[in-house]
Parts: sequence; C-alpha cells; structure tokens
Amino acid sequence: MKPSSALPKVLSPVLTPFKANGQPDAQRLIKQCQWLTTCGVGQAIFGTNSEANSMSSAQKMSLLDALASAGLNPGFLMPGTGACSIDEASVLTQAAVKAGCAGVLVLPPFYYKDVSDEGLFAFFAQVIEHVGDDRLQMYLYNIPPVTKIPLSLALLTRLRQAYPNTVMGMKDSSGDWAYTEAVIQALAPTGFQVYAGSETFLLQTLRAGGAGCISATANINPSAIARLAATWQQSDAPTQQAALDRVRSTFAKFPMIPAMKSAVAHFGHDPEWQRVLPPLMALNPAQTEGLLLALEDIGFSIQGL
Amino acid sequence: MKPSSALPKVLSPVLTPFKANGQPDAQRLIKQCQWLTTCGVGQAIFGTNSEANSMSSAQKMSLLDALASAGLNPGFLMPGTGACSIDEASVLTQAAVKAGCAGVLVLPPFYYKDVSDEGLFAFFAQVIEHVGDDRLQMYLYNIPPVTKIPLSLALLTRLRQAYPNTVMGMKDSSGDWAYTEAVIQALAPTGFQVYAGSETFLLQTLRAGGAGCISATANINPSAIARLAATWQQSDAPTQQAALDRVRSTFAKFPMIPAMKSAVAHFGHDPEWQRVLPPLMALNPAQTEGLLLALEDIGFSIQGL
Repeated sequence: MKPSSALPKVLSPVLTPFKANGQPDAQRLIKQCQWLTTCGVGQAIFGTNSEANSMSSAQKMSLLDALASAGLNPGFLMPGTGACSIDEASVLTQAAVKAGCAGVLVLPPFYYKDVSDEGLFAFFAQVIEHVGDDRLQMYLYNIPPVTKIPLSLALLTRLRQAYPNTVMGMKDSSGDWAYTEAVIQALAPTGFQVYAGSETFLLQTLRAGGAGCISATANINPSAIARLAATWQQSDAPTQQAALDRVRSTFAKFPMIPAMKSAVAHFGHDPEWQRVLPPLMALNPAQTEGLLLALEDIGFSIQGL
Repeated sequence: MKPSSALPKVLSPVLTPFKANGQPDAQRLIKQCQWLTTCGVGQAIFGTNSEANSMSSAQKMSLLDALASAGLNPGFLMPGTGACSIDEASVLTQAAVKAGCAGVLVLPPFYYKDVSDEGLFAFFAQVIEHVGDDRLQMYLYNIPPVTKIPLSLALLTRLRQAYPNTVMGMKDSSGDWAYTEAVIQALAPTGFQVYAGSETFLLQTLRAGGAGCISATANINPSAIARLAATWQQSDAPTQQAALDRVRSTFAKFPMIPAMKSAVAHFGHDPEWQRVLPPLMALNPAQTEGLLLALEDIGFSIQGL
C-alpha cells in the first residue's frame, strides 16, 4: 500500500464565482483558493457547495486548466470528478490526475434511484479501470440527503479491498454519526481516511480516528476550523468546537450556498460573489440583511479576503 | 402561436445499445429507431429508459450526429436534452434543434433537492434564452420518482405563459393521475400537449384531452400501443388498454430497463442488446428465464425486430 497522501485535515468545497453571463470566473476562483491555502485549508473544488453539477464538463475542464496554470499547490487539491456517466467521470478524473491533484472526490451516479451495491461497485470500478493511472487517489463521496444514493459500508469495504492503492477514503455527508463511526471503526485501521462532511463532527471524527472534514463552512470560517483540526487534543478543543458550531448554525438558518456567497461578497467587498446558478437563487435583500445582522450578533466576520 | 407539431401520439424512450467497451452502438440504435418508425412510434431518444444520463454529453452528441446522418425522420424525434447544468442542457438542445428534431424533452436540474419554483423557472428560461432559436419546441419532463423534483402546475403555467411558442407540452411520469388530469384541464386548452409517462394512462389521457404517451414499454410493444392511440374512440379501446396493461405489468415484475433489453435481445436474436451501463445491471440468467416464461404465459412476443 502507498503511504497516505499529505492532504490537509480540512478542505473546503470551494464556492465557484460566476460572471454575469453565467460562466465560471477563473480569476476570482484562483484568488479564493490562494486565500484558503494561506488559511491552511485544502480545496475540494467542484463539490456540492461549488455548484459543480450546475457546470458542464467543458466548464470544469477549463477551470481545472486555469487553476493548474496558476500554480496552486496540487497537493492541496481534491476536485470533485463524479458524474452520472462513467465516460464523463473518467474524463474529469483523468484530467485531475494529470494535473497532479492529491485526490479526487467521486459522487455515485445519482440519476437512477434504488440501484444495487453491485451496480455501484461496477460504476466506481469502471471509472478506476478507464482512468488506468496508479497515481489516482480516489475518495468516495457519500451525500444521501442530495443524491438519495447511500453508500453502504459493504460497498465501501468491497471497493477498498479491490483497489487498496486507489480507494483511499471518503467524505461522509450523511449527517448520521452512527454510520460515520461504523465506517471509521471498520476501515480506518486499513488506512482508509474518513472526512466528515461538516465541521460539526470534526472533533468526534478526529477522536474516533477519522481524517478531518470537508465542510461547506470552511469557505467562510477556514482558519478556525483548521485550528481545531491542528489542536484537537488540547483541552480547549470542546470550546473551539462550540464556537465553530455557532457560526455554522447561523449560516444554516439560510440557504447555505447563497448565504456563504453573500458573506464572501460582503466581507470581501466584491458584490460579484453573490451570483449563483439556477436552480439555486441568490439571497434577496431582506435575507442578506438578516444574515449580516445574525453574523454581527455572534461577532463573526471573515478576515483577509 | 405556432401550430402544434406533427409528433406522433406515441413515442418510445429508445433503449440504447452498448458495445462491450461501454460505448453506445450507433448502428444498432439507428436500426431500432427505423423499426419503431415502421410501428408508427416516435423516438424520444436519450430518455430515462435510454440510460441517457449514463452517457456523457460527448457520447450523446455523437449519437445524435449518427442518427441525423442516417436519414431518420426528424419529425418523429424528441431527444432528451436535459442536464443538471444550463450550459450542458443548452448545448445538447441546440444540437437537437439544428438537427431538425420536432421537439426536445427537458429534465429539470436533478442534483439539488428542495429547490424553488423560482429557481426551476430560471433554469428552463436560461436554457431557452441560451439556445435562442425560435424553432425550439420544448417539452418539460416531470419524473419525480427519479429526479425527486416535482414540476408544479404553477411552474408549468408560468413557463407556458412566458414562452408560448417554445414550451409546447410535457411528459408526465409522476404516476399521479390527479396531477396529470389537473395539468390537462388547466393547460390543454392553450395547446399544451400532455404525454403520459406510461401507456397505462393512455386511454385516460386521450379521453381527458391529452396528447398521448411516451412510454418505456413502447420499446417492446410499439404497434399495439400505437393502435390504441389511433383507435381510442372505438368500442374495443378498453379491451386494448387491458391487453397493454397485461404486457406492462409482466415487465414491471423485473427491473424494467434490463428486462426490456433482454426481450429485445431474445426476440431479435441479438444477445448484444442485453448490455446495460452501471449503475444498472443486466438480468441474471434466472431472471431472464423467469421473464421469458412470464411472457410466454401471456402469449407475448416482439414481431419484426
């Protein structure tokens, strides 16, 4: 087995800035990734919070090229390369591997429902075989509230056993701690790295033997989340966790992606950041005002944007 | 308003044949579309039953080119051109319009859940604006059991009113007759054409003022379904409907897409047709035997393949 990758313990599914014509804005995205790097946070670009599935393959390939050319540290990059089709997922995954990304985060095919573990295994296996590159470090992305396709422990185990040098871990956004804990107990001893899908579970995950978290709110609260990941064995860890939870629960009162974009726009003095792609909708002025008041109430702001 | 299109009353979401390497098989698909045409059935290629979302955009564009070059009647074609991203849906839709297809069938973006009507309206509106071609005849595809995104009557009404020359109708695979009937009552008087998502509802739909059906089982029972659509005002229509239902319910005892492919393979003496793409799985030998016995029991076979 290869040594586990040097990916950071906290990654952000980086928000994607869009231009007025709906095209992704590579320059703003590069700047955001650079800022996250200085905060000690890796970049799981093309995630759910990146509106990745609201972009075409062509748009994602073009962004990936731009990021690679900009000299971002590929050891901090874990692009989402999943798609409903093996062909599309393979092409994106191959591009990420060629760009030197430390990992890729792969959704299950999410169109058909009630599919079998056998069919899901065949999907991931064929993507791996099509890519055919032993540099590939794949992380499986479990987010049943959105995909409606839960990844069973049996499936994870089978994939890990079949591809021990390739299937390196997962992001678990199930929100179901009993499941997360069961996966960590069963697979962490083999080197399988479990990232929680929210920093709400960060301390629990690290204590249980997980790897860290890949969390939406690492877009707006990166340094504090990275600090807890670095100092979780210290006595103030529960206090840090409570502070993180306060920020997250404030954002969670609003549609999360538009709310985080509004916060980046506000604290970065860049209204362009408010834009989202349909079917998502930007916050309306009343919602924005409510969000900013709520953030003021808890003394929250984003520094250094 | 333009006259309504000359699309047939029955269309089939054409099964897609795949080669051993997972690539779509254009020659077999062309032959299948030609056979469906001789049965009086249009071709809603790239539908749910076509495993369209298991193909990449590039694969679909290449198939569309091959079909157009093969001289199929584009007046009988209604490709599925929906995608989670506006960019991808626009590119596919534009290609279908340029190929002269009589209509396109467009899924809502199906990754995010619990999205607003406002966001869905913006999605469809932006696809229409991006295509920017007044030959576009769009049919909305409602299939909440799969997408988990129901299209409300309010949304359909708003789209029809905003784009009366473009938003021409829908396919309703909700399986909820009360909803289908409410849409027909509200919108059929404006020329909006409602196709039921299954021939189970064909007679009811035509009696209520709907357009016909776009149904999975039109892949394996096309002539009989087309005959009911042509003769639904005759006294034997309920008997015809019952016969159609018997065939459908036999297939419905198995995973539908693999079962229909097994039937095409068996009656067409072409085992290549059995192949499906993951996450779907082909029937196992016991399932195939069970299907063929069940079909024999009801005296069903496919003629002329």
